[in-house]
Amino acid sequence: MKNKGIAVIKDGGITSPSGFKSSGICAGLKRSGKADMALIYSETPAKAAAAFTSCLFAAAPVVYDRAIISKGTPVSAIIINSGNANACTGKKGLANARSMAKTTAGLLGINPDSVLVSSTGRIGVQMPMDKIDGGIRKTVSALSGKGGHDSALAIMTTDTRPKEIAVSFQISGRKVTIGGTTKGAGMIAPGMNAVPHATMLAYVTTDASIDAKLLDKLLAEGADLSFNRITVDGDMSTNDTLIILANGRSGNKIIRSGSEEAALFREALLHVLQFLAKAIVLDGEGVTKFVTIKVLNAPSLKDANLCAKSVANSLLCKTAWFGGDPNWGRVMAAAGYSGASFNPDKASLYYEKTPVVRNGQDAGTEEGVLAKIVQKKEFTITLDLKSGKASTEVWTNDISYEYVKINADYHT
Amino acid sequence: MKNKGIAVIKDGGITSPSGFKSSGICAGLKRSGKADMALIYSETPAKAAAAFTSCLFAAAPVVYDRAIISKGTPVSAIIINSGNANACTGKKGLANARSMAKTTAGLLGINPDSVLVSSTGRIGVQMPMDKIDGGIRKTVSALSGKGGHDSALAIMTTDTRPKEIAVSFQISGRKVTIGGTTKGAGMIAPGMNAVPHATMLAYVTTDASIDAKLLDKLLAEGADLSFNRITVDGDMSTNDTLIILANGRSGNKIIRSGSEEAALFREALLHVLQFLAKAIVLDGEGVTKFVTIKVLNAPSLKDANLCAKSVANSLLCKTAWFGGDPNWGRVMAAAGYSGASFNPDKASLYYEKTPVVRNGQDAGTEEGVLAKIVQKKEFTITLDLKSGKASTEVWTNDISYEYVKINADYHT
Repeated sequence: MKNKGIAVIKDGGITSPSGFKSSGICAGLKRSGKADMALIYSETPAKAAAAFTSCLFAAAPVVYDRAIISKGTPVSAIIINSGNANACTGKKGLANARSMAKTTAGLLGINPDSVLVSSTGRIGVQMPMDKIDGGIRKTVSALSGKGGHDSALAIMTTDTRPKEIAVSFQISGRKVTIGGTTKGAGMIAPGMNAVPHATMLAYVTTDASIDAKLLDKLLAEGADLSFNRITVDGDMSTNDTLIILANGRSGNKIIRSGSEEAALFREALLHVLQFLAKAIVLDGEGVTKFVTIKVLNAPSLKDANLCAKSVANSLLCKTAWFGGDPNWGRVMAAAGYSGASFNPDKASLYYEKTPVVRNGQDAGTEEGVLAKIVQKKEFTITLDLKSGKASTEVWTNDISYEYVKINADYHT
Repeated sequence: MKNKGIAVIKDGGITSPSGFKSSGICAGLKRSGKADMALIYSETPAKAAAAFTSCLFAAAPVVYDRAIISKGTPVSAIIINSGNANACTGKKGLANARSMAKTTAGLLGINPDSVLVSSTGRIGVQMPMDKIDGGIRKTVSALSGKGGHDSALAIMTTDTRPKEIAVSFQISGRKVTIGGTTKGAGMIAPGMNAVPHATMLAYVTTDASIDAKLLDKLLAEGADLSFNRITVDGDMSTNDTLIILANGRSGNKIIRSGSEEAALFREALLHVLQFLAKAIVLDGEGVTKFVTIKVLNAPSLKDANLCAKSVANSLLCKTAWFGGDPNWGRVMAAAGYSGASFNPDKASLYYEKTPVVRNGQDAGTEEGVLAKIVQKKEFTITLDLKSGKASTEVWTNDISYEYVKINADYHT
């Protein structure tokens, strides 16, 4: 950690911060019989901020949550299921999402408006509400201050491993903790409405006391610097959701905009969000490589992003990386057709620090040297457009036989 | 053929029209030892129209050809090589393209400004001019009125088969013929500057006598209705080129805008261009399916195209088609994140004529019925947005293990 004082908690997760309980159980929604429902509960009603998919076919729980979040009222719980996305399910789907919140609220003895709902899984099938209702009961019974790991497992779909983290630091003499978990392995592309894409679900909990507007701002900015930087396959989901709950249980002096404490909280939050976003890329379906695409000195941030995402989403680049082939022509072609505006005769390309293209032409580095770089499990490709001052960074991976196999066989 | 009078010529190609010769030879540019240079020659200087890649890193031959075409002077020959793209090669690359034209012109005894140049293959490597010069000599010696098939073979890279066609029809009592050939199997996506993308090279020859402005217009429109409708992998190349040469040798009364003859020529040209464009999709790397995506009743053509191309380029859709999985949720998600504007609650989806989604919700068709459709080798997916009057159509294919294998191993 750059900033001293931010410590990663071993085996930490969403129940590391004070006042949070969680659970993950099996409601029978998945054919595999694996855990498929989770509950996150804050004993003290929490300030909430969130960002959701920008897909026009937003799933019912996304539509439902947006309405709750826009009210700005405190949130006490998030009920989550995998195995069914409750997307393209019309009015009945929305009624089912509302019913999930109501049932959860009833069992917890709280206001239904303080419960958010998330779903991931197959699109276009109505929720099996008998199983869901039974599942909600089980999640409430199983709530535990050590339940973070169980919920991390229950939200997985094609993920191969749970993704969790927690960090702690001091604010006004009090220990503050931020925990997080996420799921997502396919249907991942950068660009949510002030947040990512993917059947990406991410939950962040904190016991910090923080100003509501500052929390909103830090979440939006954090999403842009983490989940909006990742792309696995360029596909955005109907259900992408990122929620943060801040319950104030740490008892710290409220964190306000512009303060040193706000900067510290921001850094810790970014650490959590970036760790989780990178974990999704690393767990991408059939992934063998983690590739960072940097674009420097573009005329605008829009140009930088167009360029970086075009390279990151290029099937020809992704298959070349899988094959350990330097093939920089594919990188230049993807940058060139991205729609970004820049002077191609000035553009230079680097694999790690090694020059590949200088001013639009082969820099003369031996192919064997470049091959060694792209054969590594993790490397950075930097495109210096020398056409402006905007820069960006995107995290992505390769596309393997395994990716095709998983997605030809898996029925979302 | 809808319009009577347009006949497909058996084993026809670019040397079917009068006054055209061609050749395909081996210059030693490909490691495989396969044919890698081709020449197309019109005995009578021809009117030329063309469209090129919109990639910023346009290859040297594209830059060279654009200058020739913009002059509007007659064209007598096109010298073509595969195995090296002459892209990202700077001033030396441009000088090499110019030198290829000059050498060809010298041997044919024509003006260098009447020679176009095309290259496809690896990016970023200077052309081996000794081999090229020897190759040009061989192409000139081998020129033949029956050489169309040889050139169709010589322009191939990862193509599995040559792609050729010729049609003939009557104009003012004279037989007019249009011939065409193309190459392209990877790096294929719709959207050239008034033309396609792809390391797509396409050449059309005709002995028709036709007004130059009309030829320009019909080529641009024809490209939009053919090559700009195809996408294999969403990657656009640095070298995409479509050229038509019309040498007037048929002796027909000149075809002018607005006439019946212009309509007939347009239909015949569209037949040739669409046949060639579809042949590229069918020969896509590792392809097992041909999928037509129709988008109806979008607010604008831009919305229709965004939506259709988003579905056609979705890796999740493409892998589902490979797996023969109806998975319509992926289609709806891709339409929803496309950036196209429409009312999701009105959108309906059909597989062939079978309703899948009605007004944003499951139409209730049994999955087995849908599976039978997407398990066919060729099917049409129609998205009726009911949000306007613009419609479009895109042709694409699935993504298989084989695609990944070819592109992980092939060094463009």
